[in-house]
Amino acid sequence: MKQSENDTLGFLKHRLRKFARDRDWDQFHSPKNLSLALIAEAAELVEHFQWLTEEQSAQLPADKLAEVEEELADILVYLTRAANKLDIDLIQAAKRKLDINEKKYPAERVRGSSKTIHGL
Amino acid sequence: MKQSENDTLGFLKHRLRKFARDRDWDQFHSPKNLSLALIAEAAELVEHFQWLTEEQSAQLPADKLAEVEEELADILVYLTRAANKLDIDLIQAAKRKLDINEKKYPAERVRGSSKTIHGL
Amino acid sequence: MKQSENDTLGFLKHRLRKFARDRDWDQFHSPKNLSLALIAEAAELVEHFQWLTEEQSAQLPADKLAEVEEELADILVYLTRAANKLDIDLIQAAKRKLDINEKKYPAERVRGSSKTIHGL
Amino acid sequence: MKQSENDTLGFLKHRLRKFARDRDWDQFHSPKNLSLALIAEAAELVEHFQWLTEEQSAQLPADKLAEVEEELADILVYLTRAANKLDIDLIQAAKRKLDINEKKYPAERVRGSSKTIHGL
Repeated sequence: MKQSENDTLGFLKHRLRKFARDRDWDQFHSPKNLSLALIAEAAELVEHFQWLTEEQSAQLPADKLAEVEEELADILVYLTRAANKLDIDLIQAAKRKLDINEKKYPAERVRGSSKTIHGL
Repeated sequence: MKQSENDTLGFLKHRLRKFARDRDWDQFHSPKNLSLALIAEAAELVEHFQWLTEEQSAQLPADKLAEVEEELADILVYLTRAANKLDIDLIQAAKRKLDINEKKYPAERVRGSSKTIHGL
Repeated sequence: MKQSENDTLGFLKHRLRKFARDRDWDQFHSPKNLSLALIAEAAELVEHFQWLTEEQSAQLPADKLAEVEEELADILVYLTRAANKLDIDLIQAAKRKLDINEKKYPAERVRGSSKTIHGL
Repeated sequence: MKQSENDTLGFLKHRLRKFARDRDWDQFHSPKNLSLALIAEAAELVEHFQWLTEEQSAQLPADKLAEVEEELADILVYLTRAANKLDIDLIQAAKRKLDINEKKYPAERVRGSSKTIHGL
């Protein structure tokens, strides 16, 4: 799990900021627009799985997997960008959410039940 | 931008894997289901901005911002989980996508134009 | 399939227009905002099915079905409203789309294959 | 607002049912899959408005408008199909929802305020 400095979300954030600034696209990157772009990418992701069974969705052929990888990348890009514009630390936010969920759904109580899945 | 080992996507991935395994929820985490969960969270994000102007979306009051932060965290959680199940390295995928976009949209050609925004 | 005048999309359109006008909400109903509202409702729909199998999604208990019915109603409401603001006749548009799809996917060629499902 | 029999949602429902039956696609049309397809189309709609201002979204050029019309048609198609599979009467459901909203948001109380927009 060793990671170099430029394999982190922080690095991605800075690269995206520069990308937008160089193109003067910052003006279009309101949180509203970015969240719209994010959900549009999420839907492209969903489209790949639309008519597949759950099992099929876990065993994608290589060409399909490459496309799905691009959608996931796009989502991460807009997510990072939106968080940056709102001055939110994504990793810290996710850790806080997990702290909450680990208490809310104690393993021994919810084991194996999809009825209790809400937070994750 | 200094980051400790447990402030990384890699760390989050492992914590989420353990979370699901402890609750025997792995069985529900097909890529299809996870992408559905992701888009549902994306829509909760979008809902916060629905009736706001772009300007308002950039100046959220503290209570609203805290809610938005939770939605972003939820999206990151499902995104990380889906990538894990598909054995995709999110950061590398995003970097590859950016390499492509930087060539596709040269700064001098697209500056300030929203017409050319597609990849980011 | 007999229908009275006030059981039609046209009637719904007029009632929604009056609803918005009476509340002076027309100003918020840009096509952009309405499509955002629509996708947020679509995500609430999706949320109901998120952790269900396909079979379970077809056999909802009564309370869940009532909730799903409300989501479908919300989607129709925003869809009708968006079409109205853009001066689009929904039924005619759907009929044109079906004309296209019936030619694009001849029954004898695509029978039983999910690979060829795209248009519907 | 005069409508012939075959310009109604009921007619569309029957035509879609036949379309699916002729192709043996009924097996893929679980409510879960149809709601996924619906949200994917909703995202295609949203994508058209993504980088536009609200004003621009209300003044689309003809070619763009034709594309948006197709997205709206696709949404109506999946919505009608999902309602049919769940045995839900869309128009009645929308009317019930409006009955509720008209009481919940009395015109004199909410006039001109986007803060109170929730139900529509």
